[in-house]
Amino acid sequence: MHENNNLLNIRSLMHHYHLDAYIITMSDPHLSEYVAEHWKTIKWFCGFSGSTGNIVVTQNFAGLWTDSRYFVQAEDQLKGTGINLVKLKIAHTPEFIDWINEHVPAGSTIAFDGKVFPINLVKTMESKLLGKKMKLETNIDLIAKLWENRPSMPYSEIFVHELKFAGKTCEEKLKSLRARMKAQNMDYLIISGLDDIAWLYNIRGKDIPYVPLVICYSIISQNESMLFIDDNKVPDNIRKEIEIQGITINRYDEIFNYTNRIEAGKRVSIQFSKTNYTLYKAIPENCILTDNLNITTILKAIKNDVEIANIKETMVKDGLAMVKYLYWLYNAVGKERVTEISASKKLRTFRAEQESFFDESFAPISAYNAHSAMPHYCAAQETDTELKVPGIYLIDSGGQYFGGTTDITRTIPLGNPTERQKNDFTLALKGTINLANAVFPIGTKGFQLDILARKPLWDNGMNYGHGTGHGVGYFLNVHEGPQTIGTSASGDLNTMLLPGMLISDEPAFYRDGEYGFRTENLILVVEHKETEFGKFLKFETVTLCPIDLNLINKNLLDNDEVEWLNTYHTEVYNKLSSFLSKNEKQWLKENTRAI
Amino acid sequence: MHENNNLLNIRSLMHHYHLDAYIITMSDPHLSEYVAEHWKTIKWFCGFSGSTGNIVVTQNFAGLWTDSRYFVQAEDQLKGTGINLVKLKIAHTPEFIDWINEHVPAGSTIAFDGKVFPINLVKTMESKLLGKKMKLETNIDLIAKLWENRPSMPYSEIFVHELKFAGKTCEEKLKSLRARMKAQNMDYLIISGLDDIAWLYNIRGKDIPYVPLVICYSIISQNESMLFIDDNKVPDNIRKEIEIQGITINRYDEIFNYTNRIEAGKRVSIQFSKTNYTLYKAIPENCILTDNLNITTILKAIKNDVEIANIKETMVKDGLAMVKYLYWLYNAVGKERVTEISASKKLRTFRAEQESFFDESFAPISAYNAHSAMPHYCAAQETDTELKVPGIYLIDSGGQYFGGTTDITRTIPLGNPTERQKNDFTLALKGTINLANAVFPIGTKGFQLDILARKPLWDNGMNYGHGTGHGVGYFLNVHEGPQTIGTSASGDLNTMLLPGMLISDEPAFYRDGEYGFRTENLILVVEHKETEFGKFLKFETVTLCPIDLNLINKNLLDNDEVEWLNTYHTEVYNKLSSFLSKNEKQWLKENTRAI
Repeated sequence: MHENNNLLNIRSLMHHYHLDAYIITMSDPHLSEYVAEHWKTIKWFCGFSGSTGNIVVTQNFAGLWTDSRYFVQAEDQLKGTGINLVKLKIAHTPEFIDWINEHVPAGSTIAFDGKVFPINLVKTMESKLLGKKMKLETNIDLIAKLWENRPSMPYSEIFVHELKFAGKTCEEKLKSLRARMKAQNMDYLIISGLDDIAWLYNIRGKDIPYVPLVICYSIISQNESMLFIDDNKVPDNIRKEIEIQGITINRYDEIFNYTNRIEAGKRVSIQFSKTNYTLYKAIPENCILTDNLNITTILKAIKNDVEIANIKETMVKDGLAMVKYLYWLYNAVGKERVTEISASKKLRTFRAEQESFFDESFAPISAYNAHSAMPHYCAAQETDTELKVPGIYLIDSGGQYFGGTTDITRTIPLGNPTERQKNDFTLALKGTINLANAVFPIGTKGFQLDILARKPLWDNGMNYGHGTGHGVGYFLNVHEGPQTIGTSASGDLNTMLLPGMLISDEPAFYRDGEYGFRTENLILVVEHKETEFGKFLKFETVTLCPIDLNLINKNLLDNDEVEWLNTYHTEVYNKLSSFLSKNEKQWLKENTRAI
Repeated sequence: MHENNNLLNIRSLMHHYHLDAYIITMSDPHLSEYVAEHWKTIKWFCGFSGSTGNIVVTQNFAGLWTDSRYFVQAEDQLKGTGINLVKLKIAHTPEFIDWINEHVPAGSTIAFDGKVFPINLVKTMESKLLGKKMKLETNIDLIAKLWENRPSMPYSEIFVHELKFAGKTCEEKLKSLRARMKAQNMDYLIISGLDDIAWLYNIRGKDIPYVPLVICYSIISQNESMLFIDDNKVPDNIRKEIEIQGITINRYDEIFNYTNRIEAGKRVSIQFSKTNYTLYKAIPENCILTDNLNITTILKAIKNDVEIANIKETMVKDGLAMVKYLYWLYNAVGKERVTEISASKKLRTFRAEQESFFDESFAPISAYNAHSAMPHYCAAQETDTELKVPGIYLIDSGGQYFGGTTDITRTIPLGNPTERQKNDFTLALKGTINLANAVFPIGTKGFQLDILARKPLWDNGMNYGHGTGHGVGYFLNVHEGPQTIGTSASGDLNTMLLPGMLISDEPAFYRDGEYGFRTENLILVVEHKETEFGKFLKFETVTLCPIDLNLINKNLLDNDEVEWLNTYHTEVYNKLSSFLSKNEKQWLKENTRAI
């Protein structure tokens, strides 16, 4: 067991406080995708290091609920902890609530720290556990009492995201936001999503791995704009710059008191899926709540002209890093020892050479053969594998630049691919191309386009088990909605694609235990034309990097697809070649040749 | 004004009862798509004969809310009535509630007859009008007091839908239903949809135009199965046949008392969008309600093997009627006077010649030139137009047969079509073919496939303003979900397509004021194949009738599309030709030739 006494100790505390079940999760108070060490509660509690999971502890049972990606890993990491792996039937669902409902006696007290649970999850608990008269204690943080030597709250000084990158001042953004609030009859908007706040105030930090964010909250009304943040994260000059715009800076924890003083009858907008329950409970009961997608989330998703121009420049930088990397890789494999981890480190150095590079945008998926068939593989020392000929190598990576966030996947055959590999790759690639070529009327949602990416696979009885495209932030989260392209249409996924939205285009195909293929580009929604039947939109592919021609079976491509590929490769060459060395340029020429 | 004093009289009654606003709708208590004369309240009140609308009356204002299909007609029919046309911004939305919220003073009393309003609409009123402290009187039927010489409640004797057509006995259906109720932990299921009840008990009637239904309710529990129906609609022999299966027959209105006596704590399933509010209010408050898609609706949507075999036989019959009609039409136009109405009457006679024909399944859309550009056109004496060469003629019609319900659209060029007409027609036809050719994994929903039907149009900046496909009943409603194919994914539209579901495939293209094209076939969801990536489904086109080759520009079709068309036409010829006269057969041969 990772921390031998944790289970014993928590049960003793539960007994002391008369709690029948205690729930542990791995979120931070802002429900961020990546969390700082301070909130990696489950990893500390039992050693499980996956990215998603919930633990329920009773006196007789302790279980970790996680999804199929982590079954093998969890089984291993939980050995000897006394905590059982409970396999989720459906990923990302709170099946632990049903377990509590079935196994915990009626009238029991169920406790957790509401600060790290989203409002809608707690509401689901309330409605499911109501029938058995369970009592929910939503403000009990046993972890804080137990975790010795806990990593401190993340600390980084904030910095300003300069106007030449941001494109709009905080003042302009506040103006649009307040106009929309007025139109929607909202008095207060409570924002706890760190990306939304960073965008609104043009500030960034380093509190969270891979994403340039800082831990804070914000509340906006027509008159006030309040930023709640740890005092010493704000350098004096930035404080002045912020306050001069009429923004008040308050202590981080002060958000709860401030919220609690909102006047009776006021209309408060708060997104249930993105805000923690403790903050929700702080809102006085006589306020009128609406559960809305934050207006900032929509405003932020539509990139402005300066941002779009910067994204295109950033794509040249990221494309150069990728081309230099691929040129290096083709030459190195077979000559020197290259492993999944060493390769991805090399890629980081190429990105880091680019001006305005800040960090990677996520932990790269650098995966050889069978590992490439695992969509969420992340090489660790124990799994790190040498890249050898013949084989398939998949690299999914991205960078944070001041002028944009990138995310790109390429699959590379080391040596000659088999015919089956070429067919598999080409069918998935047809999806990437067909989606990139889509034309659609304004009002269209991502789920309507998903089949364009899957049709070539479906027609052959094939498929992939993840979404087709996720929204991408701008020097923010690499996964940043609300826009998305996938098979589901529930919740926020029901979002129209609008000009200025950036989204990934990443159909794939995996053969378990053998290899996986994915070609991922970022595509930008742009205007196409207006006819008597309405305004039509299309995509512009902005990622610049060759797609491996040796993996393509040209017979499977139709004329439109071949034309797209040749046009794309011409553009890649034209935009990148002048920044490359002679050898790299020669390599790029060869690898962007017309087929 | 249609009935000169109706507005005066209702205002006087409103004054008498202290009602500030009164709402009139045009539904029956079962929220049927087609309603009997008894419930055509708005037509009686003001003369408006459209299929959708709501009226709000206050002492100062009276308005009819309806959608763009009816703007011209409503303007005309409302002349001199004192009732204003209010144009809906978005069709099928209760915008009248927002009007009340804005224009009726706070604290007013708003009244209507809850028996003809769905539960979810009243709940929307409650939540929207709550802020202004409006009082809702949901049980006030002023129409009953005012409507002299009102048509009586519809009366028809029920008849049994024989097992050779229904394929499953009522006992078998009740067994499946109760198993699902048990699994979902439901004690009572309240059904008010006439199609669901007709399906469950294998009974039919003639209470409603075009649909073989009878006015009734039903409640099911594990022990009881109650049918609430007007006594004298049930002939003695059928009564015995029903009662012998353990089903209790009660008076129609008794549903409210019975519902009111459901025991405390019982779990009651009731579909909010398909059940009237008065019935909902009859459920004791201490019951636990769930708003579910009726289980019967799902069970009914998946046609059984006997039904499927009958549907295929019925398609031969309907196809023969269509071919005989088209043969007649091609020969008659230009030689004798044929009008939109006379043509559709002729088609009815061809259908009526077929064995087991019962009625038409809806009022045919028989539309010439500009009329064919109106998706919901219905020829009336004032609009009836003679079919002349050259021109475009569209016929959308269907039949009710004991062995199935049909719905088919064909567009016919009278004389030689123009190149633009051929291009327009062919682009829409590509959609019909591409949808028919779809292959998709089990779990796929209709909104995921919609783009297959629209892509050829979208690629050319074109579109059509309605759904692509609706579910089709079996000797029941021609529009019968929950399955559907369209751009929207809300509510019931989020339904998986499952083997046995029947659905229409009707992409279209309209040029306002000129002509419209639509090719509609019914397609059946069937199994395709199972691979290591899951079970895949496809469609089987079951409608049998040639698609006009003179309207096709072959250059716009790809090889797969040409192959589909030729295979389809071969099948049409093979299945129909032996039942035709020599001349008809010759005509069919020519019109199903390979291209």
